[in-house]
Parts: sequence; C-alpha cells; structure tokens
Amino acid sequence: MSRRPERSRQAAVQQRPFGQVPRHIGPVEAISADQVEAIHQAALTVLRDTGMRVLEDGARDRFRDAGGKVDGQMVRFDPEMVEEHLKTVPARFTLAARNPLHNLTLGGADTVFASVGGPAYVMDLQRGRREGTLSEMEDYLRLVQVLNVIQQEGGGPFEPMELPAHTRHLDIYSSQIRLLDKNWQTQTLGRRRTLDGLEAAQLGMGQSLEYMAENPCLLGIINTNSPLQLDIPMCEGLITMAEHGQVNVITPFTLSGAMAPVSLAGALVLQHAEALAGIILTQIVRPGVPVMYGGFTSNVDMLSGSPAFGTPEYSICSMASGQLARRIGVPFRSSNVTSANAVDAQAAYESMMSLWGVMLGGAHLVNHAAGWMHGGLTASFEKLILDAEMLQMLQAMQQPVSTDPSELALQAIAEVGPGGHFFGTSHTLERYREAFHKPLISDWTAHEAWKAGGSLGTVERASALWPKLLAEYQEPKLPEDRAEELAAWVTKRKAEGGAPMN
Amino acid sequence: MSRRPERSRQAAVQQRPFGQVPRHIGPVEAISADQVEAIHQAALTVLRDTGMRVLEDGARDRFRDAGGKVDGQMVRFDPEMVEEHLKTVPARFTLAARNPLHNLTLGGADTVFASVGGPAYVMDLQRGRREGTLSEMEDYLRLVQVLNVIQQEGGGPFEPMELPAHTRHLDIYSSQIRLLDKNWQTQTLGRRRTLDGLEAAQLGMGQSLEYMAENPCLLGIINTNSPLQLDIPMCEGLITMAEHGQVNVITPFTLSGAMAPVSLAGALVLQHAEALAGIILTQIVRPGVPVMYGGFTSNVDMLSGSPAFGTPEYSICSMASGQLARRIGVPFRSSNVTSANAVDAQAAYESMMSLWGVMLGGAHLVNHAAGWMHGGLTASFEKLILDAEMLQMLQAMQQPVSTDPSELALQAIAEVGPGGHFFGTSHTLERYREAFHKPLISDWTAHEAWKAGGSLGTVERASALWPKLLAEYQEPKLPEDRAEELAAWVTKRKAEGGAPMN
Repeated sequence: MSRRPERSRQAAVQQRPFGQVPRHIGPVEAISADQVEAIHQAALTVLRDTGMRVLEDGARDRFRDAGGKVDGQMVRFDPEMVEEHLKTVPARFTLAARNPLHNLTLGGADTVFASVGGPAYVMDLQRGRREGTLSEMEDYLRLVQVLNVIQQEGGGPFEPMELPAHTRHLDIYSSQIRLLDKNWQTQTLGRRRTLDGLEAAQLGMGQSLEYMAENPCLLGIINTNSPLQLDIPMCEGLITMAEHGQVNVITPFTLSGAMAPVSLAGALVLQHAEALAGIILTQIVRPGVPVMYGGFTSNVDMLSGSPAFGTPEYSICSMASGQLARRIGVPFRSSNVTSANAVDAQAAYESMMSLWGVMLGGAHLVNHAAGWMHGGLTASFEKLILDAEMLQMLQAMQQPVSTDPSELALQAIAEVGPGGHFFGTSHTLERYREAFHKPLISDWTAHEAWKAGGSLGTVERASALWPKLLAEYQEPKLPEDRAEELAAWVTKRKAEGGAPMN
Repeated sequence: MSRRPERSRQAAVQQRPFGQVPRHIGPVEAISADQVEAIHQAALTVLRDTGMRVLEDGARDRFRDAGGKVDGQMVRFDPEMVEEHLKTVPARFTLAARNPLHNLTLGGADTVFASVGGPAYVMDLQRGRREGTLSEMEDYLRLVQVLNVIQQEGGGPFEPMELPAHTRHLDIYSSQIRLLDKNWQTQTLGRRRTLDGLEAAQLGMGQSLEYMAENPCLLGIINTNSPLQLDIPMCEGLITMAEHGQVNVITPFTLSGAMAPVSLAGALVLQHAEALAGIILTQIVRPGVPVMYGGFTSNVDMLSGSPAFGTPEYSICSMASGQLARRIGVPFRSSNVTSANAVDAQAAYESMMSLWGVMLGGAHLVNHAAGWMHGGLTASFEKLILDAEMLQMLQAMQQPVSTDPSELALQAIAEVGPGGHFFGTSHTLERYREAFHKPLISDWTAHEAWKAGGSLGTVERASALWPKLLAEYQEPKLPEDRAEELAAWVTKRKAEGGAPMN
C-alpha cells in the first residue's frame, strides 16, 4: 500500500492536525491501590463462586478445555486460570487504517477518539430527531473523515433504516471503507455479521486474512449482558474476531442500581468480573490477541429507573475503571456520554463531565467521543461538532508547558515594564499565531457585537459549521479494482441473504 | 452569639447539605517540580531586576522599611526578602460567618465555592441583559443564601445602578449583612470603601474590630494592574484589610498575549511575581495575617484581542497556579469563568473546563463559582442555577468510594445471579435513596416524554427553578438592635458622602 499524502488544499475551517496527543496530565486515582485490589479480588471471587452464564455451546467448550468448570450454562473460573490468561494480553497494539498515516496505537500514553456508533436515530437542528437514511449516514461519515480530532470511526453512526435489516451491515461496511481512510469499527453481533466485516476489511485493505490476523485493522465492541451473562451473538462475535486476530473491546453494560449493584464498588466488581471473563475468552481463543477493557459503568435515576449518563458517578467509575484496567495490564476504553435531549448546556456539561473523567482515567480509547446523544439512542450532527470542539480543548489542555528560558519571557517582561502591554513585542509576534487553542464554534465576541450578529447560540453555530466541513470533504478514493471487488462482494452477499438477525 | 439551627422546613427543591467537601481526587501536576521552581525563580528575578511600580506613597514606604529598594515609583526586592516574608503566611485560616455553622476554613483539603462578584450587568432569560437594581440584587443574594453549594457570597453579584456611585457600596454591604448569614466578600477599592466594609461587618457580627482582627470575617480581592503595577486604590485596600487582620486575595489579572507574555510560562512568571509582591506587602503590614494566592491567568483571542475564558490554557494555568501557590505555602484561589454570551452549551463547557481545572488544581477558594457570564461583565440568574448544578456534580464526584465488604456487594451479586436485576434486592432498597447525585435541572427523561413535556432546554429549566428557590428563602433575621445600628450607620455614612470614586 502506498502512503497517500495528507490533503494539501487550504481548509476553510481551521483545525488541529490529525494525530493522537500524549496525555500529559494524569492519570489520577479515584480509589486507592488497596481498593483496586479489593475490587479485583472480589471479581475473582464472583467468577469462582457464581460464575458467568454462557449461552453459546462453543464458548462453553472453549472455557471447559481451558480449565473452566462448566455446570449447565454456568461457567466458573479459578483465580489462577484468570491470572494465567491475563499474561498473554498485549499491553499495547497497533490498529491499521487504509491510510497508514491514520494508523492507531492503543495502550500507550495517549488517547484515540472514536465517533459515535450504533444509535437508532439521527438528529439535526433543522429536522429534529428521525430515522436516518444511508445518504445521511454517508454525510455523517464524511464529517468523521474531515474532523481531524476524530481518529477512528465508531462502527456506523446510526442505522440507515430504509435498508433491510439482514443486509444493512453490508452497506454500512461499504460506506465506511469507501468514504473513510481512517480506521473504522466493525459489527460483532453474530458470526456471519462479524465475518462480513472481516471480508469487507480484507477487500478495503487489499490484504489477506492471514496478514490481517498479524496486523489487526478491526475493532469491535462486545457488551456482556449484565449481570453475568454472555449471549450467543456476542460469544460468536468475540470468538470470530479473536480467531482472526482482531480486537475485541469487552464492555459490560453495568448500570448501577439496575443491572448492577447500587453501590459503585459493587457495580465495579460486577463490571470487572464480566470484563475478565470476556478478556480471558479472547486469550483462550488466540493467545496474545489484542483486547481492551471497556468501562461503561453509570447509574440509573433511582426515581424513574432511567439510565443517567455524564453523572459524577460515571466520572468516578471511569477513573476507577482505568485503575482496574491498569491493574490487569489491559488497554482501557471509556466513552463520552450524556442523557440530554437537546444539544444545549446539559449535553455540554454531561459530556465534559465524562470527558475529563475518562481522560484523567487514562483511557486509551474514548468511544462515542463525538456525536452521542440521548443515552446512545441518537447521533446528532450538531453534537458531533460540539464534541469535536471539546475534544480539541482537551487535546490542547494535554500539551506540555515549556519553561525554556525564552518561554519564561524574562526579557519580554523587562522590555514591556510596568503598565505596558505585550501585543507588539517581538516575543508575542514570534508566537501569537500558534499560541492558543483556536475554537471551532466558541464565540468570544463582546455581548453587543454578538447581539448585532443575530444572537446565535452554540447549537446554531454548530449547525452552520457542519455543512461547511462537509463541503471540505474529499473522498479518499479506493483503487478502482478494490472498489469493484467490494461492490461485487456486497451484491453477492446481499443475494445470499446477508446475516441472520440476532 | 448563639448557634442558630439550620432550617427544618422541608424544602421543595432537593439539594446537597451546606458544607465544604474534601477534595478526594487530585491535585494533579500540570508542570513538573523543576518547572515550578523555574517559574518561581524567574519571578524572583523579575522582582529583583525589574520590580513593581507602586503608585501609593505609603505602600512604597512600607516596602522600603522592610528592605525593598525604592527608586521613584519602582520597588525592587531581593529574593531573600521575599522568602523571609513568606514565612509568616498562615497555611490555613478560618473565616467567620454570621451563622457559625457557615464558618469557612481555607487552606485545607477542601474547597469553598463563592458566588459571582462585581459584574456591571444582570441577565435573565425573560428580560435579557440590563443594568441591575438593588431589589434585583437582593433577590440574587437570597438565592445565594438558599443554594447550599455556595458557601460564600462573592462581593455583590452586580451593581445596583440606580444608586449613587459614592454610596452604593453601603447599600450592598447592608444587603449582604441582612439577607445572608453566610460569609460575604467585601470591597477593597480605596481605604474609605474598605473601612466601610469593616465597620459594616462589625455591626453585622456584633464584634469589635479588635476581636475581628484575630478572628477574620472579611475577604477581599486585590487585582494588581498587570504588568507589574499596584495602583493607589488597591494599595489602600490591601493595607487597610491587612491592618485589620482581614484576608486579601492577591490576584494578578494576567491575560496571556495582552497584559502578560504570550507564552504560558511567561504569563505564570508575571502572575507569580505580582502575587508575591502583594502577598509580602500583607505580611509587612501585619505579619501572620491570612492572605491568598489568586490565579486568574487566561489568554486573549489573538485574532480579536478579546479575552477568552474557560480555555484549555486557563485550565493549564489553574493547575500550574495551584502548584505555585503550594510551592510558597499560600492558600490558593481560582475561578469558574466563561466568555459565552448565552447560557447554553458554550457557557457549560467553558465553565466545566475551568471547574475541573481549578478543582484538580487544588483551589481552596473558587471565586465566581456560580453566576458569572460574559467574561465577568454580567451576573445571570440562570447561570447561577446551571453552575450550582455543576458544582454539586463536582462535589459528588469528590466523594470517596467505599469498598467495605457490604459495598462490594458479593452477596447481592450472588443473590441476583446471571440475567437478573438489582432493583428489588435488599442491598438496593437499603441504599437507593442516597445512592446517587440528584440533579437540580438535568433532565434524564426519554426523548418522547421530553417532547411531550414541552421540549424545555436546560436554560428554560433553570429559569423555572430559580423563582422556586427564591420562594424557599427565609431571611436569617439580624437581631433587632444590630439591624437598627446598621441602618443608622448607613444613613450616617450616606450623609457624610460615602467614599470617593477611585
């Protein structure tokens, strides 16, 4: 594969360059090392005494062959077996993108931001919330490609509902491959859908499955069915991904107070137990295959039972989950979440609350980093922009401060002296262009000027920006032959009936 | 003074109880210990070689008597002199409130949140931005009294513009004393206005100036005139406060790129130098008097020259300023800031950006923690509520997670088993009432229900909440005799012409 140059055309919208930014600040400790150990040991106890219900025969067989105790659908594990299989998990791995400049490294001192994946609905300011179409989904993917701060596509931003359910994933894969040269997440609901992702990726990358098994390019999310259950589609997806050397992200959906204990420590015990079970299954299938620890523990509103996201409890659990993942040496995935219904103050403060928590939690992957609304039911065009703004702020915040002598500015301070200003000094002139974070949509004008400009709110500015970004999109063309092969494969797979609904 | 019981009436709006919450997470290091030292040493160099321009004769005399080198209006200090006077700064102090249950401790492992102080305008959703009146200001103060998450009033939320400028501060003091039993910040612009604050506090507290000098109850903000200048009103305010044992918060207004170097390290050097100069002046006036280190360094938009707040640079500087304050052993003040024009997503993400930075920076006092808009030009009724929500979230986030055996929930996890739920377990029933953060205005309802309820945005919910909170206000009555003395004193001081404009 030849390296394709980054676009040279002058962009109208100023952005930070593409790239993972080292986390300079944190991680922080929300719980003590003793507490990490207490939760880890409690999770091992849960796996030994209660165990997981594993609904798929093949997965149970693999657990049994590796030393697990199978009793009906229940599988129990000795702590030694868990610790043994954790040893083969790689602490760091690379994920290939079609454009090698967009390859990702997961597990280091930096973070990958992925766009929203999986919602049923789409929303924008003009048209409100609705079922999405393939054409709208492709526009969303184009924005994901244009926005430098998004380093990975998150698995299909929303469902193109006009397409038949059995073959919809084929169209999504095709769009992801054609419209993006960034890495994209695949779907793992059942063996057939997962294999389709592998076959599609093979055509997109122009590589063999054998090559890809050693050089992974696919990442997929595995949600355990909390509490303590792993269903057939998820088992199949996990095993198929691992068999082919691709990356599973084991993410228990542990909502404290509902599917998990109401105490945060208890919810973390359950999350950790389920994550451990999934993680060791990947290593049983293929020792050394990359895998990630997903932390998604939030809480429900105890008055209504509604899930709540971007809460203080979510931030605490993000930081504690990072500690648990580091305890077992597995790269850590978290998310940017909100329950808000409008792209307004609540959406912003819940997302900021999660983002600071996950960044300080040392997350290697922030899933749903841009675009997620309504507790994951909706992808929003304006939220995509709002989140991109906040992500760029967090990237800028993570940059180290230089205290080189010239940056300490003693000469400039002496030169300006008391009561002066620094606007015209050579120290300023040499640095001002690159000095500070440049916003996408933040408006810093004075109040009267803002009113004279039409009193546009943040969401309205986001609404005005995304069409401009869309206009900047340039398709990273697939080579003609690969594009043809991909199209033929989609046609063939549709004729075969796609994949069963799980 | 007798302890008055907290109100017993059942409040309609659920809040966390009044109280400083220990910071469980952080502080973090945005710069290394070597960098802290480099900035500290550079600041000492600035004070030795360039010095401060001190416009007030008396302040220069005091500096000279303490060993400073005076040359015209310039004062230069040896590093040894600075280090010597830092030795007497108390690391921790108590600030008395009229209600002793509302006394504050500054300098420990917790944070005090103060309401907005100083804006020229007021704003609410219904009436937009406008000049405020005394009656509106008093409503704002009533909300500050009602909101438990605000532990200190911030110095008059906005100017009652219908009142004459020379005597306006007298009416503000009178309102602060009558309507609040929380601690309130005073005004320090010139000697007379500062003395008026002391006399008013004396009447409100029913204590002598001598008693108050040993048991401070007043805190005031001293802004240096960056770069490197201390003007007459600020010198007079600082000296008057310190003479009477009250607390100065020395806060350089160092906007990187304008009044401070464009490099963050340079801006921090300037901030640190100016803060040191102010801090040692307080110790020269009265060794051992409490004083705080104010960090307010932000940056300008280099395209327009407008100040920008809630930026990544602001967060970095907040964390680094906390480190600098700890280096010299002085309690640290920071702020919750935004440049946004509307109480919308930008206001929320800029405030959250600052709040996480200041909390992780280990701030002992967050000034303008609730209500600040427009870079400090406006106090907003809805922003007060929005900020109270975010402050409660940060308080909840700072609470430690218990990993006691019952909180690890092994029994509940075993009891519920795979595929069940935790709603009805005794473990949940025993804990659910107090389990999670309860929001003031966050709306977690499903999208259709939210639409059916009128699609209210966050700012509209805040607009609906503050009148309800106002209805809950109960005046913490001043004893009759003190109220009469205070009123008589205001009348007398008005007849005398108030205080000169500076």
